[in-house]
Amino acid sequence: MKEICKLKHQAWLMIIFLFFLIPYIWSQQEDENIIKDDRINKKISWSWEVGFHEQKNMPPEKWFPAVVPGAVQLSLLEILDNPDWQFADGYKQFQWMEDVYWTYRCNFHKPSLTEGQHLFFISKGIDYRFNVFLNGNKLVEQEGMFTPVETDITSYLQENNKLIVIIFPVPKSHQRRMDRSQANHSFKPAVSYGWDWHPRLVPSGIWDQTYLEIRDPFFLKDIQYQYQLDENLKTAKIWIGGKTTDYPGTVTFTLGFKNQIVLEKEIDIINGEFSIAENLDEINLWWPCELGKQDLYEFHLYLLNAKGEKTDYHTWKSGFRKIRLVENRGAEVPGTLFPKTRNNPPFTLEINNIRIFAKGTNWVNPEIFPGIITTGRYKELLDLAKGMHFNLLRVWGGGIINKDAFFELCDEMGIMVWQEFPLSCNNYPDDPVYLEVLKQEATSIVKRLHNHPSLAIWSGGNELFNSWSGMTDQSLPLRWLNAICLENSPEIPFIPTSPVMGVGHGHYIFYDKNTDEDVFQIMNRSHHTALTEFGMPSPSDPEIIKKIIPGVELFPPTPTDAWKAHHAYGAWIGNTWLCPDILEKYFGKAESLEEMVQQGQMLQSIGYKAIYESARQQWPYCSMALNWCFNEPWPTAANNSIIQYPAQPKPCYEAIKQACRPALASASIPKFSWEKNEDLKIGLFIINGTQDKLPPGKMEVSINGNLAKTWEYPEVPVNRNLPGPVVLFPLTETTGKWIKIELKVRGQEELNSEYLLLLK
Amino acid sequence: MKEICKLKHQAWLMIIFLFFLIPYIWSQQEDENIIKDDRINKKISWSWEVGFHEQKNMPPEKWFPAVVPGAVQLSLLEILDNPDWQFADGYKQFQWMEDVYWTYRCNFHKPSLTEGQHLFFISKGIDYRFNVFLNGNKLVEQEGMFTPVETDITSYLQENNKLIVIIFPVPKSHQRRMDRSQANHSFKPAVSYGWDWHPRLVPSGIWDQTYLEIRDPFFLKDIQYQYQLDENLKTAKIWIGGKTTDYPGTVTFTLGFKNQIVLEKEIDIINGEFSIAENLDEINLWWPCELGKQDLYEFHLYLLNAKGEKTDYHTWKSGFRKIRLVENRGAEVPGTLFPKTRNNPPFTLEINNIRIFAKGTNWVNPEIFPGIITTGRYKELLDLAKGMHFNLLRVWGGGIINKDAFFELCDEMGIMVWQEFPLSCNNYPDDPVYLEVLKQEATSIVKRLHNHPSLAIWSGGNELFNSWSGMTDQSLPLRWLNAICLENSPEIPFIPTSPVMGVGHGHYIFYDKNTDEDVFQIMNRSHHTALTEFGMPSPSDPEIIKKIIPGVELFPPTPTDAWKAHHAYGAWIGNTWLCPDILEKYFGKAESLEEMVQQGQMLQSIGYKAIYESARQQWPYCSMALNWCFNEPWPTAANNSIIQYPAQPKPCYEAIKQACRPALASASIPKFSWEKNEDLKIGLFIINGTQDKLPPGKMEVSINGNLAKTWEYPEVPVNRNLPGPVVLFPLTETTGKWIKIELKVRGQEELNSEYLLLLK
Repeated sequence: MKEICKLKHQAWLMIIFLFFLIPYIWSQQEDENIIKDDRINKKISWSWEVGFHEQKNMPPEKWFPAVVPGAVQLSLLEILDNPDWQFADGYKQFQWMEDVYWTYRCNFHKPSLTEGQHLFFISKGIDYRFNVFLNGNKLVEQEGMFTPVETDITSYLQENNKLIVIIFPVPKSHQRRMDRSQANHSFKPAVSYGWDWHPRLVPSGIWDQTYLEIRDPFFLKDIQYQYQLDENLKTAKIWIGGKTTDYPGTVTFTLGFKNQIVLEKEIDIINGEFSIAENLDEINLWWPCELGKQDLYEFHLYLLNAKGEKTDYHTWKSGFRKIRLVENRGAEVPGTLFPKTRNNPPFTLEINNIRIFAKGTNWVNPEIFPGIITTGRYKELLDLAKGMHFNLLRVWGGGIINKDAFFELCDEMGIMVWQEFPLSCNNYPDDPVYLEVLKQEATSIVKRLHNHPSLAIWSGGNELFNSWSGMTDQSLPLRWLNAICLENSPEIPFIPTSPVMGVGHGHYIFYDKNTDEDVFQIMNRSHHTALTEFGMPSPSDPEIIKKIIPGVELFPPTPTDAWKAHHAYGAWIGNTWLCPDILEKYFGKAESLEEMVQQGQMLQSIGYKAIYESARQQWPYCSMALNWCFNEPWPTAANNSIIQYPAQPKPCYEAIKQACRPALASASIPKFSWEKNEDLKIGLFIINGTQDKLPPGKMEVSINGNLAKTWEYPEVPVNRNLPGPVVLFPLTETTGKWIKIELKVRGQEELNSEYLLLLK
Repeated sequence: MKEICKLKHQAWLMIIFLFFLIPYIWSQQEDENIIKDDRINKKISWSWEVGFHEQKNMPPEKWFPAVVPGAVQLSLLEILDNPDWQFADGYKQFQWMEDVYWTYRCNFHKPSLTEGQHLFFISKGIDYRFNVFLNGNKLVEQEGMFTPVETDITSYLQENNKLIVIIFPVPKSHQRRMDRSQANHSFKPAVSYGWDWHPRLVPSGIWDQTYLEIRDPFFLKDIQYQYQLDENLKTAKIWIGGKTTDYPGTVTFTLGFKNQIVLEKEIDIINGEFSIAENLDEINLWWPCELGKQDLYEFHLYLLNAKGEKTDYHTWKSGFRKIRLVENRGAEVPGTLFPKTRNNPPFTLEINNIRIFAKGTNWVNPEIFPGIITTGRYKELLDLAKGMHFNLLRVWGGGIINKDAFFELCDEMGIMVWQEFPLSCNNYPDDPVYLEVLKQEATSIVKRLHNHPSLAIWSGGNELFNSWSGMTDQSLPLRWLNAICLENSPEIPFIPTSPVMGVGHGHYIFYDKNTDEDVFQIMNRSHHTALTEFGMPSPSDPEIIKKIIPGVELFPPTPTDAWKAHHAYGAWIGNTWLCPDILEKYFGKAESLEEMVQQGQMLQSIGYKAIYESARQQWPYCSMALNWCFNEPWPTAANNSIIQYPAQPKPCYEAIKQACRPALASASIPKFSWEKNEDLKIGLFIINGTQDKLPPGKMEVSINGNLAKTWEYPEVPVNRNLPGPVVLFPLTETTGKWIKIELKVRGQEELNSEYLLLLK
């Protein structure tokens, strides 16, 4: 490893730092990336400018300093009426910006290039349709924000150069409604067009690292890496292929693991191509957190020209793991006589041959403007997710594909990623123009990400087979996504969308007046192979609300523009997400904002705990519980999120953390609200989600401090639930407004659980 | 068109008939094909020989004249104990032939080739794994019977030539059980390994047209054709691409329709490639039978070398149609509260923008040995299918992919084809070796067939997502089949298997004692988007049974080897397919074979009529009814087939024909067997499956000759059902053993229907 590090900094790299030129060190190198990010932000922001114009070929009347990477909108904060656009309905000020053109410009001197060197313009992401010009020559025309630009500009260079990036108006398939349906002919994340927790605010512009790079003309291209494990997961068959811009030459491959070189190989380049096929024995597997280590290997390719000079370098980290979706226990559709239909699709994650219950959440874009997401923000949020014992994030298809740093952190932290493509709640067409963009963008995404061991599932998008979307198994966009994932990433499962048959989405409120059911009741009749979305709203902390709602409107809340803009009213159905009627039903009218927030956050905590535990009690038929949603991209007044913008946990964080412990004592509870003349009836469980047996034990159940039951239970097998007796307790003996249920396990206090129910 | 015909016979074709050399005229030319077939059969059978050997490199001890195309087994009939192998359990004599090698040989003199001409060895199908040698040189190694061989043998020619084809033992993934599971690692049709209506008899050998061909060195390759219709289905955008072995040169394209040339184009060949993109206005659509005409266009490509000489020719017929699978009305999974799951997959065929109810059947291989299927047999069987008003054949995945003549006839007759790949009731693996064969074979199949307008659905195979198979949506073979169909045939729907969710398979008997339900009762509780398999067994005609069962065993039937070999006993569950217990339940013990056959064939007729009509009554939620099965590959003693081997209809033929009329009066009947103290209760329908309105009318319902109800109904809209009143009739007033229900429509007698139920 030391040797490898040394090499990185040697002169042969031939990359020099110049003005705003920064080296192109491959994105998979996490440490370098962070440094590079900072440099881009500092240096390029000095030199880019941006302006808007109505007509494509008309230059901007005024130029503003540009934030790169960032968004055109953020560069124009100074012309807003209220630069604190997150306050009240201030986001509406951005609306006109959707329909104009934007031009970025920067001037640079020609760098000194040695004989044969080339200068490349590189951008990892420009949002959404754009042209790139150098000195009046059009170099790039592209639709799609996820395909990097990498174009040789050497032959267009002058002494003083003018680089122009023209961004087209945001894509809209129609003008009939200002909503997500406008995104249904583009590969642009639909969430920006407005969602029940996201304002209508459509970012545009250069959103990922963008720079110039000097290259030796002899460099590496189209690197592909795949591996296959033997049945015992002991040996990996590694295959690496790639191309070079020229030949002859050689490629040196080294594989490093924990500061040791475990494999080293020199290969000749034949007709500009090379291929490495090696077996690696005694491999160390990558595991999700709580199941094992997150062992990562370092792959290094060095390119040497005919003279033996190193002219290029490519490195990435990856891990070895086998990931599958297998049929849930009992996947046969129950009770079907002839005519028989098919089994439910598989929805249990099996990692390295072990079936697991996936505990997790739906991850949404952590900023409205993806250009300003930092590695630090990713880290903060992922630490919080891991803190709740989550092992799976569904990166929801309404949002963006995250930057490399997100996946690198997930690899290191052992958090699995279910990655959806940006299709959501629309009927994306079989139209050839759309399909071409989809194929280009999806191929770029899959090639960029598929080597991350954290990547567990590809999905076509969100809720595409539901009536409000109208896509089907026959839709060509989904067939193409399946085919592209298969070709480039066959080792990772693909699902067309969520939910698939047997999987459930919802509910999103604590109490549904249509069915007169609370969350406990809904969960007791739910019978799903997975719950991949379920929500439980609450108001945000009072301090947050006070920053976004005008003081005079604070209490009592009413459906004003400010409250509505921040999703407290009219977001989904009824009074979501504030749900004052539900709060009042259980607690009576609140006297202050603080009391109302406390009521809502308490229901959220109780509700989320109920759902996670109920789903886990249903293991192995149910194999997944992912709440809607983890985070949020801006301050909301009320939302289903666990983490408030930017990275501030709500009280439910602790409740979910309890429910998602690897092992716990758990109660099955029929309903939330009880009357004094009823008998409380709860079922007992020991949930063992670990790969170890739990020793026998004794569980004591007390209700408001009264011992109601003692259960002596036997050893609990690996990864199994042990159902226990039912506890019957007459509520006539209780006093107060609450029923507190405590499950205590002598000598294993880490299993203890408690629940709070309402007594009327 | 006259001009085109003339060209075909001109000298420039440069193809000469020599000894057993016959011209390679492209397979899509139906007329020519039939002639060629005959010639091959006559001429090549004189010159091929075949023999078997235990070791691969050991020559056969004895040579037999070979049937080509045919099967090695059929060439060896003379060494069987009983050459009438269809009698009793005579098919078992073939068993040892599975595990030996077979060598075909033929000798030929070098044909006279002019300067630059090449000689090709061409075979459209060799079953299953084989090598081809010429004069000791190995030219071909292949696994897979559906990928044609086309290999240039010029450089290996001597004055006297010895051509050898070595066939490997039939593929078996294991020796544990002699059943279909042995086929689970190969692309060989699983039916040959034994099914409940097919003996264990695995064919081997050269099974499709095989010949030598003299070619000009400048010829056409890799011809691709696709088209896209505009929204109004008025204009077709035609795209044809291809390669040539050399350049320069030109390609002339003419498009003919009904003896007129409607498009003509000359294109230069650029770097050995050419591409034609044309719009054709005012197109004539291809329709399935009963919905419109089967208009076909003739595509001709002529290749001209630099001197303007025609050196190759390619022609095919195709039609223009748009085919989709769309969501059934009411496809949302009924009654789901939150958590919500997805809609049922689409299963209504929409042809040229019109939703239709698909009436049809499951087509199985019409011979055990596919090599001897003739165009004449296809025609006979397809005429019978069309005679029952069938518009869709599911070509079941246990069997073969049919020869070109089958699809050409379906194109002409307007019968749509649901084509499954040969995967059936097994768990085909993700194994890379299997996947390579699958990709090769599937690509060959899709490229050969996708231009047939009759092709309506691609399917991965049969019952792969059921518990007895164990494949899932994640299985790589099915993901690859989807991808290969998408790439080569994106205009045709793909389903991974049947049944998909919502679709039903079964039942396969008239009465199920487990649930105490008869077919009427089963159908009344069935709620499926499609019924793509349902069976109703009957004994075969006595004359057939007498040819295959020893005389002493004929009556009463008992489960002897002969009856079992012919599927009367132990075929599926219980006493299938003879079902003597069910016959006795309704009719008492039969006194003779003839009586038993008559009883069984009557139940079959009543059962099939009940199912087809009940499914049609459920339109539009239910959109398809395909019985199991249409035909059979050898004489059976009992089977679910409508057509007995080789092409002899059972009495149910007429009953199904009645049930599948485009429009009819129909009754919904709760059960088959009634008692005198009950009230008969039937629902009335007018089913209108036509694209015309039906005029108002008057339906008279009589029960055993007594007028029970008159229903005056209004106009019936296009392609809609009109439900009518319920008829209540006290059975105390009837006499005899039968209840005969007659529905008569005054002045529209073609709508009349009648039903026979049992009175106890």
